[in-house]
Amino acid sequence: MNTATSGSMQLPQPYLLFLGDVAERGFAKTALGLRDWAPEKCVGELALPGATVSTGLPAMTPAQAHAAGARALVIGVANSGGVIPPSWRASLVAALEAGLDIVAGMHMRIVDVPEVRDAAERLGRQLIDVRVPPADIPVATGRKRTGKRLLTVGTDCALGKKYTALALARAFVACGVDADFRATGQTGIMIAGGGMPMDAVISDFEAGAAEMLSPDAAADHWDVIEGQGSLAHPAYAAVSLGLLHGSQPDVFVVCHEPGRTDMLGTAGYQVATIEEIIELTLALGRRTNPDIRCGGFSFNTAALSEEEARLVMDRESARLGLPVADPVRGGPNLDALVASCLA
Amino acid sequence: MNTATSGSMQLPQPYLLFLGDVAERGFAKTALGLRDWAPEKCVGELALPGATVSTGLPAMTPAQAHAAGARALVIGVANSGGVIPPSWRASLVAALEAGLDIVAGMHMRIVDVPEVRDAAERLGRQLIDVRVPPADIPVATGRKRTGKRLLTVGTDCALGKKYTALALARAFVACGVDADFRATGQTGIMIAGGGMPMDAVISDFEAGAAEMLSPDAAADHWDVIEGQGSLAHPAYAAVSLGLLHGSQPDVFVVCHEPGRTDMLGTAGYQVATIEEIIELTLALGRRTNPDIRCGGFSFNTAALSEEEARLVMDRESARLGLPVADPVRGGPNLDALVASCLA
Repeated sequence: MNTATSGSMQLPQPYLLFLGDVAERGFAKTALGLRDWAPEKCVGELALPGATVSTGLPAMTPAQAHAAGARALVIGVANSGGVIPPSWRASLVAALEAGLDIVAGMHMRIVDVPEVRDAAERLGRQLIDVRVPPADIPVATGRKRTGKRLLTVGTDCALGKKYTALALARAFVACGVDADFRATGQTGIMIAGGGMPMDAVISDFEAGAAEMLSPDAAADHWDVIEGQGSLAHPAYAAVSLGLLHGSQPDVFVVCHEPGRTDMLGTAGYQVATIEEIIELTLALGRRTNPDIRCGGFSFNTAALSEEEARLVMDRESARLGLPVADPVRGGPNLDALVASCLA
Repeated sequence: MNTATSGSMQLPQPYLLFLGDVAERGFAKTALGLRDWAPEKCVGELALPGATVSTGLPAMTPAQAHAAGARALVIGVANSGGVIPPSWRASLVAALEAGLDIVAGMHMRIVDVPEVRDAAERLGRQLIDVRVPPADIPVATGRKRTGKRLLTVGTDCALGKKYTALALARAFVACGVDADFRATGQTGIMIAGGGMPMDAVISDFEAGAAEMLSPDAAADHWDVIEGQGSLAHPAYAAVSLGLLHGSQPDVFVVCHEPGRTDMLGTAGYQVATIEEIIELTLALGRRTNPDIRCGGFSFNTAALSEEEARLVMDRESARLGLPVADPVRGGPNLDALVASCLA
């Protein structure tokens, strides 16, 4: 998969994956995601004593990683507070001294760690926070851009929009289609080596940021754009709508988790129905792309057995009249979804 | 009209209106708007030699204004570059020395004028930029708040949403209804003495900012909220949707300018139809207020004769089945719109 970006945030690559002293797999999600989705960008890993999770990549010091071509250390772990603990600091300074920039996306800003900031200044190295948008985002123009675009949308937050976009971009490329994954959140940005942190953009520039993320391209090129939030989410719909308008998608795929009832982070809000999201996405998306259409559905069936998943996907596909796939399970369902999107 | 605010930006009041050396009425829009909509907040005006526009308020030095109760100097003029010229600086420093804070909303930030910033620091005075949102905006919860809310929405930008909200709030109060105007843009914020600059809020917090702007209130109290942008505008719809979701309006009024064909700032986009805006506002607004309804329409008929305006308002009111008024013209049409909103 080609994950080059243009017109938005750019990260130095390839990476040395920093694992800190991580002892829970869930907290190493970013590092594991990078290994799975961007192995060509990862030269090795660096863990502290006490770490029990590994990506399986070769262990390297910052100097060894730099010699192997690495240009940035990526903080590939989180912890519950999102802080950068004192025990990490010597390794981060050593990375800067070895010639690596640092890429981070934790709650605590990397530039707010004085000894790391001072070392970066002294050495002329970059500290890049993938949650901070570029400074020069323009107001959207609405001008129709060349090339094809697909956007993943959702009946709620956090149910597989990034994973679906990554899987579709990979599947498009496997079919011989020229495609780029376009990242809109921090993990996606690290995987792609660039992108736009859409939820951190000032509202007036939200659609402009989406325009910047997926510039003019060849007529048969596809940008597969990671969706954010949901048009039906009472907190995050502004992000979703700016992204929809600015992306001008030709095709959207609705991501859904069967069995989820309540919307994330709200009290008393049910997850939107798939039909509601189709209708809203068409009604709003037509404004910047009159030819927008639904390509099908991506279900997160992690909580279901193989048979349960097949049953619910078959039933919903018959009811809705378009392919339903779980990209994690893949198989003929995913092939059908890809074919429908490219049709 | 009661224009107290809570839970969002608060401005020191009353004001001394600063006119600089303004020679064009259009550039004094903010000062003239304050005189018209918040006369109780304006104690006088301060103009430099060369100014030819006046608000008609008494001319005062900063010291005289402070003695008359003023607590802030408001920069009530703009110029084409949005800059704060050197010729203004002595007056601004004099205002700080007289005990006034400074309220500004120009493109150039008031804190970026070194001698003004230094004087404010030395004297312990505030420099308030109404384009800068408060720092503590939370993510929206979607929790239903007490009290009633009206939001003005539009078929485009810049066609009367602020004016309509101000006129409706004033008319509500004249009917004996307890109502507050809630400001979402810089001029509105100066008029209200507070509010939320919605277009400058980070997208993730856009709906949360709208929730903050119109807190719980008495069951029969109305917040009349200034709309922003348009759900159909390819650049600004994210602002409009966050504001809609967070405002949870019971009633919305669609603002429209008959005869306008192209959307502001875009090439090739027609102004949305009134029906399109009704449908989108209902479909999206129901998410946070299932009882949302359209109260009627506000037409900006400044370009039409009295008779042309009456004809187009009568025709559209009959076609759409709800009152149409131009708040600038007032009259029985406005009474009918107010009655429909409060019904």
